[in-house]
Formats: sequence, structure tokens, C-alpha cells
Amino acid sequence: MAKSRARQFAIGVDYGTNSVRALVVDVADGAEVATHVYNYPSGHQGILLDPKDPNLARQNPADYIEGFFKSVKGALKAAQKTRGFRPEHVIGIGVDTTGSTPIPVDRAGMPLALQPKFKRSLAAQAWLWKDHTGHAEAAEITQRARQTQAPYLAKCGGTYSSEWFWSKILHCKRSAPQVFAAAYAWVELADFIPGYLTGRLDPHTVPRGICPAGHKAMYNDQWGGLPSEEFLAGLDPDLVEVRRRYATRAVPADQEAGELTAQVAQKVGLPAGIPVAVGAFDAHTGAVGAGIKPGTLVKIIGTSTCDMMVAPMDQPLADIPGLCGIVPGSIIPGMYGLEAGQSAVGDIFNWFASHLAPKQYVAKGDAHANLTREAQRLKPGQSGLLALDWNNGNRTILVDPLLCGLLIGQTLHTTAAEIYRALIEATAFGALTIIKRFEEYGVAVHEVVNCGGIAEKNPFLMQIYADVCNRPMKISRSAQTCALGAAIFGAVVGGAYRTTEEAQARMTGVKPKVYRPNPSAAPVYAELYPLYRTLHDAFGTADGQGQLYRVMKDLIAIRNRVRKR
Amino acid sequence: MAKSRARQFAIGVDYGTNSVRALVVDVADGAEVATHVYNYPSGHQGILLDPKDPNLARQNPADYIEGFFKSVKGALKAAQKTRGFRPEHVIGIGVDTTGSTPIPVDRAGMPLALQPKFKRSLAAQAWLWKDHTGHAEAAEITQRARQTQAPYLAKCGGTYSSEWFWSKILHCKRSAPQVFAAAYAWVELADFIPGYLTGRLDPHTVPRGICPAGHKAMYNDQWGGLPSEEFLAGLDPDLVEVRRRYATRAVPADQEAGELTAQVAQKVGLPAGIPVAVGAFDAHTGAVGAGIKPGTLVKIIGTSTCDMMVAPMDQPLADIPGLCGIVPGSIIPGMYGLEAGQSAVGDIFNWFASHLAPKQYVAKGDAHANLTREAQRLKPGQSGLLALDWNNGNRTILVDPLLCGLLIGQTLHTTAAEIYRALIEATAFGALTIIKRFEEYGVAVHEVVNCGGIAEKNPFLMQIYADVCNRPMKISRSAQTCALGAAIFGAVVGGAYRTTEEAQARMTGVKPKVYRPNPSAAPVYAELYPLYRTLHDAFGTADGQGQLYRVMKDLIAIRNRVRKR
Repeated sequence: MAKSRARQFAIGVDYGTNSVRALVVDVADGAEVATHVYNYPSGHQGILLDPKDPNLARQNPADYIEGFFKSVKGALKAAQKTRGFRPEHVIGIGVDTTGSTPIPVDRAGMPLALQPKFKRSLAAQAWLWKDHTGHAEAAEITQRARQTQAPYLAKCGGTYSSEWFWSKILHCKRSAPQVFAAAYAWVELADFIPGYLTGRLDPHTVPRGICPAGHKAMYNDQWGGLPSEEFLAGLDPDLVEVRRRYATRAVPADQEAGELTAQVAQKVGLPAGIPVAVGAFDAHTGAVGAGIKPGTLVKIIGTSTCDMMVAPMDQPLADIPGLCGIVPGSIIPGMYGLEAGQSAVGDIFNWFASHLAPKQYVAKGDAHANLTREAQRLKPGQSGLLALDWNNGNRTILVDPLLCGLLIGQTLHTTAAEIYRALIEATAFGALTIIKRFEEYGVAVHEVVNCGGIAEKNPFLMQIYADVCNRPMKISRSAQTCALGAAIFGAVVGGAYRTTEEAQARMTGVKPKVYRPNPSAAPVYAELYPLYRTLHDAFGTADGQGQLYRVMKDLIAIRNRVRKR
Repeated sequence: MAKSRARQFAIGVDYGTNSVRALVVDVADGAEVATHVYNYPSGHQGILLDPKDPNLARQNPADYIEGFFKSVKGALKAAQKTRGFRPEHVIGIGVDTTGSTPIPVDRAGMPLALQPKFKRSLAAQAWLWKDHTGHAEAAEITQRARQTQAPYLAKCGGTYSSEWFWSKILHCKRSAPQVFAAAYAWVELADFIPGYLTGRLDPHTVPRGICPAGHKAMYNDQWGGLPSEEFLAGLDPDLVEVRRRYATRAVPADQEAGELTAQVAQKVGLPAGIPVAVGAFDAHTGAVGAGIKPGTLVKIIGTSTCDMMVAPMDQPLADIPGLCGIVPGSIIPGMYGLEAGQSAVGDIFNWFASHLAPKQYVAKGDAHANLTREAQRLKPGQSGLLALDWNNGNRTILVDPLLCGLLIGQTLHTTAAEIYRALIEATAFGALTIIKRFEEYGVAVHEVVNCGGIAEKNPFLMQIYADVCNRPMKISRSAQTCALGAAIFGAVVGGAYRTTEEAQARMTGVKPKVYRPNPSAAPVYAELYPLYRTLHDAFGTADGQGQLYRVMKDLIAIRNRVRKR
């Protein structure tokens, strides 16, 4: 009997908002062999907050480094129980992270925050994706791009976001000039980790992923990489240096960043020299792990959502207003990667459950489960409530982090469960708005594959999404699509597959259970959606209903002024 | 030493939404000698509800009769402890009630609901003021008055309300024709009680108060009493009979309805023959008890508010759009009585505290107290929240019971206490809107006197009202102004004073504590109010912002349709 070839494994390391997960997968079929999660120990669930500024969200970079060691070591330990697994069988490592999460670093490429001097400085930490402190700078960047007729916004929806690279760096310059001055360069978390693992941290040469560069830093080969020195100098002359120290060409995640250093390898119990893929964002590897292909919308539903599509590069693709980004190669190398999303989904339900669920829902068991039990007894439209899903702003299609929540229709009898359902419905209306925007610009959505914690665990929500969108909702086979997608890139750089698509074909799939629109619910939601859209346009667009567009802005301006007193 | 004249007392009987209160006062100075409250035993806190229709609110008329006996007997018992009190010293009785609270009665004037056959019929009960089931009929009445150019709406704000007499009766005809057919006539609760006490219940001759007639039944001596037979016949020919059985002239509350019958007197332990005043609504006697006079706005703040003013009849007074009513003699005989109000104030806070206050606020102590403690630490504008106070519709100035609540500005950090404060502020903005409307039409507000449970017990709210309205807020000396006002009319019909004003001068007053605008808060509210007004006009008026006006209506239409399935 011929001796069977040894099994091969890849590791995906997925840096989320509150924790990092390592996943060991079998490259033959994507089978998930072992996983381990490490919760960031710093701050509130890993996030450093400022009680005086709800827009601020930072992270301690030490948590990322420790997180790699702990999560990979834990996953390897668990994998040892699998027959046939040996650390020597790991052929590649892929990494994905949140983003835009830029980190100010020193000349060696190490985070400033690791220096005792900057340990307590919020500005010296990693600027987490959901940090919105740079909203004024984002508006300034948008305005400058429009005034100078620079092409940079065309591929990011026409509006630069406060969540992104340059807004944060410029805000650091303005609000914490001593940190800005001490930083030799700025590196995205998605680039820092592969650089750290492979010993290629020098800011001038650290392998930069096309995904963070293209979606958040206005990088595009079409205009020679990052925005021009002239453009940046017009915002602040010091940004020119930031550009100069970012000089390498950005590449897709199927490219090798380097090989695992002996030092890191030893720490986790792997052989040195394993190929490490270039980094990408979690949503993008998640889309890969969920089997994204042309016509397939992948929705990653968690605290926020990402709505990912790809489009062939041999056909013309319009610039799509309000889409966060269109970047060649950012999801699947060789295809346009399209990113949309909702700034808060699970976060809205968590906010409601922790801040407004009365005693009877929390006395026994989980508040979400108790609210859901009651909410699912309601019929669509029965509560008379309607909400906007903007508690954390609107990412697509309005690209406005300063929008906020709205609830309408309360009576003296309105219950918590009714509001909870209205909030779920609001996020579904937001999801439909994104689908419509894709299709309005010629990107047909033939299939929707959902993944992420909420898609996995919330059949009530998924049914509402099917009813509101009036489309079947499929669920990704893997519960860890981001880590699986990272592992797929690990498998590709490890040589198991020639292309990302080949790896996807073997390593991804959907579950048998499909949520289909309920014929009695969908028509009611078809009536409610125009009402949602009326509110959406009135409060979200300047050309909507005149002064209503100002209401949320003015409230926030007053709030910010009062809080600073 | 000359023997001092025996002290004289009057009794005010105040029929509220959940209970009836009897108050024994000294007619010399309004000193409150004794009081007793009887909670209506039927339904939910005295209110009969229909789980299928949130608009329905009825009461069991038997509770009113039993309530008179129990409350007056209890108050007299307590009064016996006062030196110098004897039941023989009671010189008059006044009565006030909620309204419009029409009751279908038989030929003898007794409520149909007392008959075994109708005991369980919701339509045969008293139709409580906050019953909104007749909203379609209200719209029909408004439309007919406009089409026929009848003058009837000019004195009630231009829109007939679902809370009022004819809407309810017409809705009974349409929805419960067997009850309508069995009813010989319809009598307001405010007229039923004096009629019952004095044995003058015959519907044709029961003393009808100008207050209920003028404010709720479109009665005006200017056009010969109730609306014409022709007008009513156009709505429904059967309404003509209702009019014919209501033929007496309506009179102010300083007139005597009759004398206490021996039967009732014996039941409560009073001498027979005591003069009983014509009935009025609680808000109107409350205004009297709070010392209303030209230039003084009396706000009665409870579950809802009433905003009362009087104006001299020797000066011209414009019809004021959106004001519930302008009726000669309805508050102080010989002056115009002006009534405005907010459909829900305390009810909104109660809704929030009981439906949305999380565990930490209810675990220990009163939810309102706990929410207030945290809410009062916030500065105006600090939460970024803004609400509309329409959870129970809008009475003034929009006169639209189908409006509903709205909250805007929620983030992922918004707390229950922030929302609680925003709801209080919303009611303050609503209060300011009413003051502005009075002044826009030439009725100057020189002073604001507040009364009612909330004015008494909620200094936090009163300070916000002072800050939002940017005016001092005074508090009525009496905590029972409605009952005191009724007792004042008892004192007048009992002969202690020649006029209501004379009695007021002796029997009413304000407390030393005055809430004055905080110079740091008022300017912020002056910025927030235009935002409130923008939302108010956009969602509340058809000429505001176009389609937004439809949103609440459409939500309710969908809700009603879905619920009926």
C-alpha cells in the first residue's frame, strides 16, 4: 500500500475589534482543525476610550504582538489533538486585520506606544477603525480633493472618511503634534503584522498590502500610488514625509511578504521560514473565505457589516457614489474589489440590550434571546415603528460618520421588543439600500452569502433580511470566514494552489439552510422601505428636505461644544 | 368677648383619570382641611382597555358613583378631626371631571352600563377623554365643517378632535350601533355628577356646563347652542336626536345645578339641600384654583398637560389656530376661557420608566428618581439627543392624535438617563410652542403658574421648563388645584362670595419658591428649540417638508392594517 502524502495545513490569523483568532485549516478542503482566541487585555474589551469624546477608539499595539503569540500557540496546541497534524505540516500563514487602523511607528518600524514615554499617550496607540476623531480632517480632505479636481475620491465613493488613514494622521498632527513629530512613519496594522512576523519592519520597505493602501490611503497605481506630494502638502506639508516613508509598491494578499523569523517561530512552536502572505483587511479575507466571486455579494455581519463584491477587470466599471472603495486586487487578485458597509449593526443591538432593555429581559438568560423571543412574535409593520441604523454614522451610501440614530412611531404602549425588532429591520433596510446602489451602477447581485457571528447565530435576523431584501439569504459554511480567507492566502503563498480562486473552490462553501423571503412579510416591507428611504434622504442628504439635513449636524455641533466646556 | 362666627367649608370633588378626590376647604382662606382619594377599581388603574386597539380607553360609570360616596365620606371623616368642623358647616359643593368623557344614558339619565345587558359592553361605558377610537369621525367632522363653511371650528383651533363629544358619539353609532340605539341621550361626566347629586338627571333638563359644552360639543350661544340640526344630519341623521335631547342652555360653574338630594346626603353624612355647582372640567377648575387671571398662564402638569388662560370679553380676541378651545365663561364666568395642552407629559416619562429603564435604574428605589439623579448631571445639549413629545399625539398646536413619538441623535453610547432627559426637554419645547402660539395671537403671557403632581414633585423638570421657556416658573400654593377650584365654585354657589374672582383672591396663591432661568442653560436651549421646531413642522404639518408629513400617518395606517389581519 502506497504511503499517503502528508496532510498540509495553513494558518489564518484574524485581528478583530476585541480579540485575535488563529485558525488552523486543512488546505485540501478548508476543514477547520483548531482555533484559539485571545481577547485583547487593554481598555474596555480591548478598546481604549476617552470618556470626554465618544469618537475616540484606540488600541494598545502590545496587544497585537502578544495576541499573535497567544492565539497561534493556542491553536497549534489544540491542533496537536488532530490525527496527522504536525507543526512541520504548516505550509503558509495569512493575516487579516481591522482597518483602517494606522499605527505611528519609530525608525525601526516599531509602534511608538511600546516606548515608555508614549505608553500612556492615546495618540501614540493604534487608531482603531472606528475612531472618528478625524471627522473635520476627513471633510477637509474631501473638500481639497474636490476643489483641486484630484481623482482620488472617485474610487472611494466621493467622500473621504474619518475612519481612514490620512484623516487620522492629519488629526494626530493637529491634536497631538508631539506624537506626530516623534513618529517616523505610519503603518497600517494589516501591514505591521506581516512585517513583524517576517522581520521586514523598516517603514520604507515593509510590504504594503493593496487592500489597506487602496481602500484607505487613496493608493492607486493609475495615479502612481499614494496621492501626490502636492496634494498632501496642501493639507499639511508634513504629510509629504509620511508619503516618502511609504514608498514601496502595494501588492495583493496572494503575494509573499516574507518568511517567518526564527525568533517568532520559536515563540509559537513552528519551524522558521514558513511563507507569510501580505496582509489584508478582515472583510476582504472574509469575502474570500465565504467564496466571493462575480455576482456574489458577501455580507459579513458583526458589530458592523461589510458588503463585499468583486467584478472582472476586463469589463468597464463605473465609479459608484457612496461606495467605500473600488480597488483592483483588494479581495481577489486580478479582480476589482468593491467594499460597502454599515457602520453599526450588531453594535446597535448590543447598545440597546445593554442600555435600554428593562429588567424582565435581563433577569433570566440573555437579553438578546429574550428580546428576540418577543420580537419574533410581531408581524412586520405591527409596531408602527421605524428606525434609521445610523447610531455610528452611515458608511454606505452616505459616507457620513456624523449621522446618528433615529426612531419614529413610539406611542405610550411601545415595548422594548418592538424597538429591538425595529432596529433589526433598520439594519435590513440599510442592507437593501446597499444592494440597490450596487445594482443601480451595473453590478448585479445574483446571490447573497452571509457570514459573521450574527449570520451564524441569528436566524430571526436572517429571515428579516430575506424578507426586507426579498432575496434568498445563504450562509457561509465556515463560521470563521475572515481567518479562513487569511489561511487561503497562506495556502496560496505556501504553494498548495496556483490561484486564490482555485483555493476558494476547494476550501469554501455554503450551508444547506437558505433563508427565503416569506410571501406574507415581503410585501409589507416593500411598503415600509420607501418610508425608510424618505427619512434616509431627508436626514442624510443635503438635497433631500432642506433643513432636516442640518438637524443631526447641529445637534452634534452643540453636543461637542457643550462637552468641551 | 363676642362669639366668633362659625367657620364655613366647601367641598370640591375632582374626578381624575385614575381616581376621584374629595377636598374639604375653609372658604375663608382656602385652607385644605381634609382630603380623601378613591381609586377606581375597574380595569387597569380605572381604565378599561382593548388589547387589540391602543386607541380605546373607557371607564365604568359605577366607579364614579361609588367614588363620590367613598371620597366624600372619607374626607368628611378626616375633617372631623379639625377643630371647628361640622358637616353642617359645609355651604356648597363643586364638581370637576375629566373630559370630554361622554356617557350613553337611558331615558332617566342613568348610564346604560349600569344595566346588566350592557355591563360588559365597552361601547356602553364612559368614553374617557383619552379614547381616540373616533379619529376617523373627528376628521369627518372637521372636513364637513370646512366644506359647509360652518363657524363651529373657529373656537376650537380649526380641527375637531377624536377626544371630543361628537367624534365619540358618531364612532359609537358606526362601531356599536346597538349601544347607540339603546342610548336615549349622551351626557358628559361633568354634567352627570351634579345631575346625579341633585336628582336632576333627565337628559332634557340636566344642567349642562358651558365648559364641556363649549370646549367639546361645539356649543356657542353665538350660533344658538350646539351645531345646527342640518350640520349634524349631514354627518348622521341620528345625531339630530342627540341634539334634541340636549336642549337646555349651558351655564358657567358659578351657577347652582341644584341641591344635594336627601338620598345622597344621607349616604355621605351631610345635610340635604346643600347647593351643588354646575360641573366643569378639571383643567378649568384647576386654573381657577391656581389663581388664573388675565396674563397668567396656568399649566396643569400631570399625565398630560392643560395650558389655561383667560381673556377679558370687552376686548377683541382672535381665533387662535390649533388651540383646543376658546369659550366664554368656561374658566372664570364673564371672561373667555382659553384651553391648550399636551396630550402626554407624565405619561411619556412613565412609559419610558416602565418600558425602557434598564435594571440598574429599577433595582433599588424609584426608576424616576434614579433616572433623574443621573439626568440632572447632564448639561443642556450634552447628549446630542432631541425628541418630539408626541407619543400620544399632539393636542396643541397641531391637533393631531395620530402623530407619534420621535427620538433623534442616538449613538452607541446613549444612556437611558440621557433619553429620559431628552423626553423631559421635549415636553418643555412643546410647552414653549404653546406659549408662543398664545403670544403670536395677542394673548400676552406675563406669568406662568404651574400646578399638578409633576409641578409639585419634580424640581428638575420645573428648572428645565424655566430654562427652555426662558421665563420664571411659579408653583401654585395648593397641591390640589382642581379640587380647590371646584370647592371655590362650591363656595360661590354657597353664597360665601359674590364672584369667582373674589373667592380666588382669598382662597388661592403661589409658593415662595420660583424657578428662574439659568443663564448658562437658556442660551443652549434657545439653539435647540429651532431644531425641535424644524422636526415639529416637518413631521406635523402638511406644508412643512412634503413627504415627511406622511411618514407617521403611513406607519400608523400600515400598523392598523397589519393588526387587523
